Amino acid sequence: MITALAGGVGAARFLQGLLQVVRGEDLTIVSNTGDDCEFYGLHVSPDVDIVLYHLAGVADEERGWGIRGDTFHVLDALAALGYETWFRLGDRDLATCLHRTRLLREGRTLSEATAEIARGLGLECTVLPMSDDPVRTKIVTGEGVLDFQDYFVKRAAAVPIQDITFDGAKRARPAPGVLEAIRDADAVVVAPSNPLVSVGPILAVPGIREALSETAARVAAVSPIVGGGVIKGPADRMLREMGHEASAAQVGRLYRDFLDVLIIDQADADLRPDIEASGLEVVVTDTIMRDMEKKAALARAALSPLGVAP
Amino acid sequence: MITALAGGVGAARFLQGLLQVVRGEDLTIVSNTGDDCEFYGLHVSPDVDIVLYHLAGVADEERGWGIRGDTFHVLDALAALGYETWFRLGDRDLATCLHRTRLLREGRTLSEATAEIARGLGLECTVLPMSDDPVRTKIVTGEGVLDFQDYFVKRAAAVPIQDITFDGAKRARPAPGVLEAIRDADAVVVAPSNPLVSVGPILAVPGIREALSETAARVAAVSPIVGGGVIKGPADRMLREMGHEASAAQVGRLYRDFLDVLIIDQADADLRPDIEASGLEVVVTDTIMRDMEKKAALARAALSPLGVAP
Repeated sequence: MITALAGGVGAARFLQGLLQVVRGEDLTIVSNTGDDCEFYGLHVSPDVDIVLYHLAGVADEERGWGIRGDTFHVLDALAALGYETWFRLGDRDLATCLHRTRLLREGRTLSEATAEIARGLGLECTVLPMSDDPVRTKIVTGEGVLDFQDYFVKRAAAVPIQDITFDGAKRARPAPGVLEAIRDADAVVVAPSNPLVSVGPILAVPGIREALSETAARVAAVSPIVGGGVIKGPADRMLREMGHEASAAQVGRLYRDFLDVLIIDQADADLRPDIEASGLEVVVTDTIMRDMEKKAALARAALSPLGVAP
Repeated sequence: MITALAGGVGAARFLQGLLQVVRGEDLTIVSNTGDDCEFYGLHVSPDVDIVLYHLAGVADEERGWGIRGDTFHVLDALAALGYETWFRLGDRDLATCLHRTRLLREGRTLSEATAEIARGLGLECTVLPMSDDPVRTKIVTGEGVLDFQDYFVKRAAAVPIQDITFDGAKRARPAPGVLEAIRDADAVVVAPSNPLVSVGPILAVPGIREALSETAARVAAVSPIVGGGVIKGPADRMLREMGHEASAAQVGRLYRDFLDVLIIDQADADLRPDIEASGLEVVVTDTIMRDMEKKAALARAALSPLGVAP
């Protein structure tokens, strides 16, 4: 059994590779719900859905969000009714959110709704939200405290950040199965996601960080930072704005209390001695997931030092 | 000031004609919400919307429901997620319902939501739901008690009916402005709608029937029954199944306590003496609304005996 901690598109691409080398029924994904939000009266779980869509093979991989070939007729009609529609939800994507919202309004938990959507998309792996309780990532900026999507989508992550908070995290409980999936796993992998706003919210749910430290399984993380930059997203900028170094080594430091192995890119091979000196095992490999073969190779590289031979 | 009681598509077509001869700001429409329903987690007001769409010029007039040229991508995606999708909501139509649902969930009343949607569609007339309280038309059949849309759409009104009830009607209050619109009107017109399930629910809201009897304005109704049949819908069959005669005269009898003038079709000219003998004034005219000119002519024919000269 493999358990993966996942944020958005980087995680989704990594998990595609993972499912090339492990069976769906052997994989549990713990997904970030800190960027969940309400738009158009619907409960949107952007990170959960981008993972689901990628694994179901329906994601718009080029755009990095939503469903391939989706249309935007509902949003166009909402715009005509006076709505701000900068948060883009295609018609098919919106159907997922309608489904989730209906289930939640009927009293089902986010876990149950997520499982039902995953089943509807034909997935065999288990996808767990980090918590059934609301946790909301907020970005503190000079312009005030912004909802995560306001910062990330509307302002294109272009406002310097001063702090990141996870509203509700202190009172949140891990979703059913999350702690067990970490404690009982044969291996745990943290996907190449933004450590501050994708993995950060998961780690902020009381009990999850402790479970990662205590699990008998070895824990690996794939650094989303490559050569001091990123493939996609603002992780490097956010790290610097938060006073960190934007480096693979810094990713290792953020996870130091529970991490055994850090997977870094060839471009960062020179960081190896320093990271090893901090007590981490290091795997240097090609982490740029250009195609499915590269994704599968990266998954293998991440799993092999964990003692599971896929 | 003209006040019109309205059901679905027949009313919508009649109201298009009415707006050819009176100004929007002089018209108040009291709309049936007995067929409101929840589908896909959304609050749907079929009769309200068909009226709004016709008056906004966006209705699919040929099909008789929804928006012209609408697509069904959300519904297709919901079907893929396992939903029954016999209640067809196009993508743009669904945006209206999303908007209404969001407003209601935020604590706005159905009146407020309806007004906001009407404004969004550019309408100048006032559209009032008959009540802000839930009233649900139920059809008692040999197969059990059916929700109205289950009877009307899913079973194509093909199940013989035994009774009609309006759940919640006894506790419902007329929406703000409804009684005033009837009492203070210069003329009141009941549109050519099914008297049992389109106008019936409006009349079942305590106070509305009394206001129609007491208003100083004269009240006319356009018979939806022509030559013992109907242009569209199951009104004739329902009347017979409920033990009534399917005739224009019967429509007059159902409204006798508040009606002054009954507008009947040329095909029913021979009914005139009997209807007049029952104490009603009768106007015989062409009630088949083939085009906008015919619709306007019918509106004029309905208004002229009411003492308002459009």
